[in-house]
Amino acid sequence: MAVRVDLNISLDGVAAPADPSPQNPMGADWGLLVEDYMATRTFRERVFGDFSGSGTTGVDDRYAAAYFDGIGAEVMGAGMFGIHAFPDDPDWRGWWGDDPPFRVPVLVLTHSERAPIAFANGTRFEFVSTGIEDAVRRAGELSGGADVRVGGGVATVRSALAAGLVDRLHVAVRPVILGRGTRLWDDLTHLHAHYRVTSEVAESGVVHVTFER
Amino acid sequence: MAVRVDLNISLDGVAAPADPSPQNPMGADWGLLVEDYMATRTFRERVFGDFSGSGTTGVDDRYAAAYFDGIGAEVMGAGMFGIHAFPDDPDWRGWWGDDPPFRVPVLVLTHSERAPIAFANGTRFEFVSTGIEDAVRRAGELSGGADVRVGGGVATVRSALAAGLVDRLHVAVRPVILGRGTRLWDDLTHLHAHYRVTSEVAESGVVHVTFER
Repeated sequence: MAVRVDLNISLDGVAAPADPSPQNPMGADWGLLVEDYMATRTFRERVFGDFSGSGTTGVDDRYAAAYFDGIGAEVMGAGMFGIHAFPDDPDWRGWWGDDPPFRVPVLVLTHSERAPIAFANGTRFEFVSTGIEDAVRRAGELSGGADVRVGGGVATVRSALAAGLVDRLHVAVRPVILGRGTRLWDDLTHLHAHYRVTSEVAESGVVHVTFER
Repeated sequence: MAVRVDLNISLDGVAAPADPSPQNPMGADWGLLVEDYMATRTFRERVFGDFSGSGTTGVDDRYAAAYFDGIGAEVMGAGMFGIHAFPDDPDWRGWWGDDPPFRVPVLVLTHSERAPIAFANGTRFEFVSTGIEDAVRRAGELSGGADVRVGGGVATVRSALAAGLVDRLHVAVRPVILGRGTRLWDDLTHLHAHYRVTSEVAESGVVHVTFER
């Protein structure tokens, strides 16, 4: 069982663009970060349900396929689940409707207790109010021996990295300069010293950097 | 004639490590940034005068050789020349003794006028108190049709990039997280939009990213 993180970041390390708005809930520059990832065949199949065979099949697609493979449980922050957007709705069930794309147990970090929410497709949200270490440990108990993903948002990923909980970090670095937003690396001084680091350039120009223990 | 910049940076964008000291004038983590560059055969020959044939000869060395090729004039900040370290010495001649490694005209940004300083090896320091645009233009006049390098420090490079004066930016990104120091990219929002960007991974793991107009 390994704890894994995958993120799209800019060359200046921004993982969450600035200025989210109703029109651009992930920030106006989100497309600049994920364009090549969203162009992969795997993303089109797994997220859009487009099985027409369109989409790229090179290095970016290999990483996209690995992203979806072998995950037995997931950890996410309260913001990613949507609690910050709907703080007064104790029955909020996440953004994903009746078919959340996880299909495994998802441990959601919160400050208050909530009852678990189960879906027919195997997704089960369970809430953890005692911090990232507990959430990752509980995810490991529920993953059936498969890997655990810390999915986001950036603050949750950063806290997992700072706590030394992550076994494999893969960043897809798109060669753009966003200038503003939430940066991944701040204060993670000498993080590299705990990992072997390898890099690979995709046909798209994206640089895939992998930190592995 | 192209205006060129070459820098070694960390994955979190630090181009000048924090905490320079007498023992480590470039900062304690400087070695982490330049280790693979200093290991190249070209660097050993051109900077150390070591022509024994030791040193790496792969991708890093190809970029190191390109760094030294085709430069007809150079621009540098007052700090890199040493004026900030010796503000009260009007006869300061730079850090490099009687054989400065430039061998071409070097335009040094200052706030006050100084007389030019010429060396037998072709290096000639000339001082410009009217800003980066004037310094780069004057360097272009003196380069004899060859390229101009904006050599450093980071503040000078950033001002040249912000002013749109740079035709080719090459960053050797070492996959280390320094956490502290002077970052290259801050406030250079959407810099990539003015360039074609290509990347290449060296045998050492360094990722060479080139922005070209």
